[in-house]
Amino acid sequence: MTTKIVVIGAVAAGASAATKARREDEHAEIILFEKGPYASFANCGLPYYIGGTIRERKNLFQVSNEYFHKRFNIDLRVNHEVIKINRKEKNVEVVNHQTGESFNEEYDKLIVAVGGEVIKPPIEGVDSQKIFTLLTVPDADEIREELQNEPESVVIVGGGYIGVETAEELHHRGLKVILVEMMDQIIAPLDKEMTMPLVQHLKELGIEIILSDGVRKFQEEGDMIKVTLQSEREFDADFVILATGVRPRLKLVKDAGLKVSEIGVVVNEFMQTSDPNIYAAGDIVESTHLVTGEKVRFALAGPANKQGRIAGAHAAGKTKKKFKGVLGTSIVKVGDFTAASTGLNEKECQKRNISYYSVYLDKGDHAGYYPGSEDLTIKLLVEEETGKLLGAQCIGRKSVDKQIDVFATALQAKMTVEDLEDLDLAYAPPYSSAKGPVIMSGMIASNHLRYETDLISPQDLKSALEAEKDIQLVDVRTDREYEEGYIGGAKHIPLNSLRERIGELNPEKYTVVYCRKGYRGYLAYKILIANGFDTVENLTGGILAWN
Amino acid sequence: MTTKIVVIGAVAAGASAATKARREDEHAEIILFEKGPYASFANCGLPYYIGGTIRERKNLFQVSNEYFHKRFNIDLRVNHEVIKINRKEKNVEVVNHQTGESFNEEYDKLIVAVGGEVIKPPIEGVDSQKIFTLLTVPDADEIREELQNEPESVVIVGGGYIGVETAEELHHRGLKVILVEMMDQIIAPLDKEMTMPLVQHLKELGIEIILSDGVRKFQEEGDMIKVTLQSEREFDADFVILATGVRPRLKLVKDAGLKVSEIGVVVNEFMQTSDPNIYAAGDIVESTHLVTGEKVRFALAGPANKQGRIAGAHAAGKTKKKFKGVLGTSIVKVGDFTAASTGLNEKECQKRNISYYSVYLDKGDHAGYYPGSEDLTIKLLVEEETGKLLGAQCIGRKSVDKQIDVFATALQAKMTVEDLEDLDLAYAPPYSSAKGPVIMSGMIASNHLRYETDLISPQDLKSALEAEKDIQLVDVRTDREYEEGYIGGAKHIPLNSLRERIGELNPEKYTVVYCRKGYRGYLAYKILIANGFDTVENLTGGILAWN
Ligand SMILES: Cc1cc2nc3c(=O)[nH]c(=O)nc-3n(C[C@H](O)[C@H](O)[C@H](O)COP(=O)(O)OP(=O)(O)OC[C@H]3O[C@@H](n4cnc5c(N)ncnc54)[C@H](O)[C@@H]3O)c2cc1C
Ligand SMILES: Cc1cc2nc3c(=O)[nH]c(=O)nc-3n(C[C@H](O)[C@H](O)[C@H](O)COP(=O)(O)OP(=O)(O)OC[C@H]3O[C@@H](n4cnc5c(N)ncnc54)[C@H](O)[C@@H]3O)c2cc1C
Ligand SMILES: CC(C)(COP(=O)(O)OP(=O)(O)OC[C@H]1O[C@@H](n2cnc3c(N)ncnc32)[C@H](O)[C@@H]1OP(=O)(O)O)[C@@H](O)C(=O)NCCC(=O)NCCS
Ligand SMILES: CC(C)(COP(=O)(O)OP(=O)(O)OC[C@H]1O[C@@H](n2cnc3c(N)ncnc32)[C@H](O)[C@@H]1OP(=O)(O)O)[C@@H](O)C(=O)NCCC(=O)NCCS
Ligand SMILES: [Ca+2]
Ligand SMILES: [Ca+2]
Repeated sequence: MTTKIVVIGAVAAGASAATKARREDEHAEIILFEKGPYASFANCGLPYYIGGTIRERKNLFQVSNEYFHKRFNIDLRVNHEVIKINRKEKNVEVVNHQTGESFNEEYDKLIVAVGGEVIKPPIEGVDSQKIFTLLTVPDADEIREELQNEPESVVIVGGGYIGVETAEELHHRGLKVILVEMMDQIIAPLDKEMTMPLVQHLKELGIEIILSDGVRKFQEEGDMIKVTLQSEREFDADFVILATGVRPRLKLVKDAGLKVSEIGVVVNEFMQTSDPNIYAAGDIVESTHLVTGEKVRFALAGPANKQGRIAGAHAAGKTKKKFKGVLGTSIVKVGDFTAASTGLNEKECQKRNISYYSVYLDKGDHAGYYPGSEDLTIKLLVEEETGKLLGAQCIGRKSVDKQIDVFATALQAKMTVEDLEDLDLAYAPPYSSAKGPVIMSGMIASNHLRYETDLISPQDLKSALEAEKDIQLVDVRTDREYEEGYIGGAKHIPLNSLRERIGELNPEKYTVVYCRKGYRGYLAYKILIANGFDTVENLTGGILAWN
Repeated sequence: MTTKIVVIGAVAAGASAATKARREDEHAEIILFEKGPYASFANCGLPYYIGGTIRERKNLFQVSNEYFHKRFNIDLRVNHEVIKINRKEKNVEVVNHQTGESFNEEYDKLIVAVGGEVIKPPIEGVDSQKIFTLLTVPDADEIREELQNEPESVVIVGGGYIGVETAEELHHRGLKVILVEMMDQIIAPLDKEMTMPLVQHLKELGIEIILSDGVRKFQEEGDMIKVTLQSEREFDADFVILATGVRPRLKLVKDAGLKVSEIGVVVNEFMQTSDPNIYAAGDIVESTHLVTGEKVRFALAGPANKQGRIAGAHAAGKTKKKFKGVLGTSIVKVGDFTAASTGLNEKECQKRNISYYSVYLDKGDHAGYYPGSEDLTIKLLVEEETGKLLGAQCIGRKSVDKQIDVFATALQAKMTVEDLEDLDLAYAPPYSSAKGPVIMSGMIASNHLRYETDLISPQDLKSALEAEKDIQLVDVRTDREYEEGYIGGAKHIPLNSLRERIGELNPEKYTVVYCRKGYRGYLAYKILIANGFDTVENLTGGILAWN
């Protein structure tokens, strides 16, 4: 008897499930329903397609509609929307949007991979024809059409990665771009201070960024649209792109009475829902966070593809492969910068009352003596008692993707910062240094863990100064560096004179040392502690992290 | 009582040990003896300095001689060679090469970090003034001086990474470069087939590469030097660079009666030799291989720096940090290519009679639809029963350093290929794909491990064909691909027609399928197995790996 597998949604998770099911069961009947006109398209490429970086529209399609039939013997039906799952009857109700007809299709196994839907905030005027969203190929087509009118300006609402990518791409095309974000930072997976250099960079490129302000009203005015913010600031633009996020499309599964949590569809490790004949995968499901063990949902393509693959295999009855969980590893190009993160950020550590410490490191992507080295900034979050890595963030112009992938691999292996210190990574001058950024961050974090140094974060130093705590603050940079600016109240003793001039400091006072990046501060820490100073802390990341 | 720490050798391991000892013991007396005129120089930068990529000579020095005193309060004495260790008396005998004087210096703790010395093969004429080596700054100075004479040609002997880097750099400077290597491949850490595209590329750049041929004789002829090979081929060149490797400088430790194995100085995890007051670190010591547990020695800067740090800390009495071992992770720029490896290669697996299988993958460094994607080639070695990763190699034009660092991290964590499959790595179109190269290689290797596919390596297929085994070889590529060349004896059935034309094949025959890279071969494998074929194998890496 052949198994009949029906898949709903034909992009990341759904298409992966269908092709995998075919590989695992050559004789199954596989039907793949897709509401829109296209299957297997590169959602993630859409910002780059509207910007023109991706030149050819056809490049957006990974497996053509034709190949689903020819290569995979999958009955792909585009423009077919599933509107109901009848679990008792084991069938789904389908509308063919081309003919308007509807019909029922039976299944033995059903895989739901309907993804996310755009969140349209309930703002006055949000339904204007001049407001676009970007989720599908037709969405991108519409924006490309709008660009035919040679618009001069656009307001982008939302500073997540899609908003930022789109801003950069449209700026690149010559438009005046204004990006509006309600939060006080862009790219939420990163901590705020890590995003500040990115905002700075986007501004330098000529993109206007407005933080901590939301849209109150949209108003069409002739050929233009007026955007009024909460702060009463107003902008006129040719059009608007809403990049205010997506939420999981849960109606189908909820109506079918399948178990759904606050976060998303509840599934087991084989991606089975509460009905073992029904699977769910991709943006709609909740997953286990590999650091906290909590249930979470990240709308990302990697997990969607892997989950689809596991659902498809299991539905076809062939594998014991399980989906273990996610880290939320993500990355985004921000002009000439890259920003990436994996695991927990500081906000999340705080929310969970985890005892953690943070480490900042600025270091060249490769040996400084080989041309072209660019500094990148790493931030680690580390569990206080155990030294277990909790999360990492990285920004810079080069090699950020490498650092974050190594951190993600380390997180998956539940490594401590002492394990990072031991890593045997590749070094030749064009690629890294003998103790490259990941290893060095591990060394710094391990020193703190082993009580061989004591770090203070910029945030904690700020609080301490604001609380007017009695701090002996010592700047150990050179004269020139000091003259260019220092932290208020700091006494200046260059590192190389510290041994001679140590008598100028009071060993009984709580002392904080700092330099530019943290290295000289660390050396100063060691000298002071060895000379009987009671309590010394080194500002992690130095004045660079402070600013 | 202050401790007196004496360090011999002031570069990677020695300088790291001395600075670390200072951090851990502010009051220790630390003397750092260096035979040559410079400390803390970038050995790894020397090829790039003679080539001119590194413009400024001063960039070669990481910590200046002055800073050792000023910043670290270390008594650095350059041009001081230690010629004997008197363990009973706990002193060393030192020659000051500037004055010719010699004296004894006492120690409480001694750290030996004397590195490697050039292997000069016993070839007729090897002592010619026209033959150079490249280990130190004075060596580089001499070559730079030779380059002042505007030479036109150079013979480089040795195809290890220093030979290759130097070849490329001198070619870049406009010299005609001939590289001679005795083995049948360059860059020994890689398996031969992985180096063939590199040789091809170097040839295309205009560098002559001669493999499987050694030098028999050097002969000065006027301003030129004639190089005669074993094969009787002869070349005239303006000068020669010997890059035939280094061996550990063991005389000092051996004379002192310290334990030395076939491989190098025997040390414990704190880098203590058989005399607990004497430490050794860097190129002279043996280390534990983290995959095999065997003792090995790789002359690499990362381990040297880490070992020096651990030796310095322990000598200063302050840390419990241990040196765990090495993977031999290494990387080299080869023209526009990068080549890298970590862990065991296939030659090493074979020598140890490990049951392993190999997986080849050609895949873009990032999503093909985003411009600039370049294929890279990955080779994995995997333990047959357990799926444990044994080693990885990678070549390509982009992002090779990232892939190899992720593999090295995975090796350190003793991951299986199923763990690689699960990795949650960063994806956005400019950086990777939803299932990036590492993950995809893990998927392919896991399928083989789980008996969901059966791979055959190009080597095994070659042997089988040579043994005239009765193989039904099936090429599933398109007509056009097939016409451009195929493996002799292959029957051609394009994948998309395989289901219809399956009757043309004999299901009882041992069948091997192949395509360009392995993906379509895998799909064909699945179709054939599902149709009752007894034994099917898919050529891993496709015809690309075959060639
Ligand atoms: C502009 C953009 C950029 C992105 N960039 C990145 C990135 O750089 N990196 C990254 O990791 N992720 C990125 N993502 C997110 C990533 O694309 C998603 O996480 C992933 O596609 C989710 O896969 P899915 O299969 O769950 O949903 P989708 O890929 O959205 O597929 C769901 C499909 O189901 C169809 N469908 C919905 N309801 C029905 C129904 N009732 N009947 C039939 N069909 C239905 C939809 O039409 C849709 O085609 C981006 C997303 C967007 C929109
Ligand atoms: C040209 C070149 C390129 C390289 N490229 C790379 C690369 O890209 N990546 C990589 O990982 N590794 C590379 N290496 C290898 C790396 O430099 C070494 O592994 C590392 O420097 C070894 O450190 P060490 O401290 O053991 O020895 P060294 O760094 O060689 O230092 C030993 C020092 O001890 C001194 N010495 C010796 N005997 C005495 C004595 N009796 N008394 C006093 N002093 C003494 C020597 O003069 C020398 O300065 C390269 C090496 C060279 C030569
Ligand atoms: C393309 C798509 C249909 C999946 O199709 P697919 O056939 O699974 O294609 P992939 O390229 O992912 O191939 C993966 C399979 O081929 C195998 N494979 C790939 N290369 C191989 C090789 N060289 N040798 C052997 N096997 C290989 C893999 O092991 C895997 O098989 P498995 O799942 O059975 O283990 C689906 O991912 C999709 O529609 N993607 C586009 C949408 C999307 O992902 N959007 C979000 C990101 S923009
Ligand atoms: C440079 C050299 C002298 C080592 O000096 P060093 O003072 O240890 O310098 P590094 O840059 O390695 O700094 C590492 C130390 O500073 C700390 N550190 C670095 N940046 C820091 C920061 N931002 N905040 C806090 N601490 C920091 C590290 O934790 C480490 O200290 P630890 O070992 O006590 O944990 C030695 O490596 C050398 O001579 N190298 C050149 C030769 C060579 O390596 N050749 C081969 C490669 S070309
Ligand atoms: Ca602290
Ligand atoms: Ca086999």
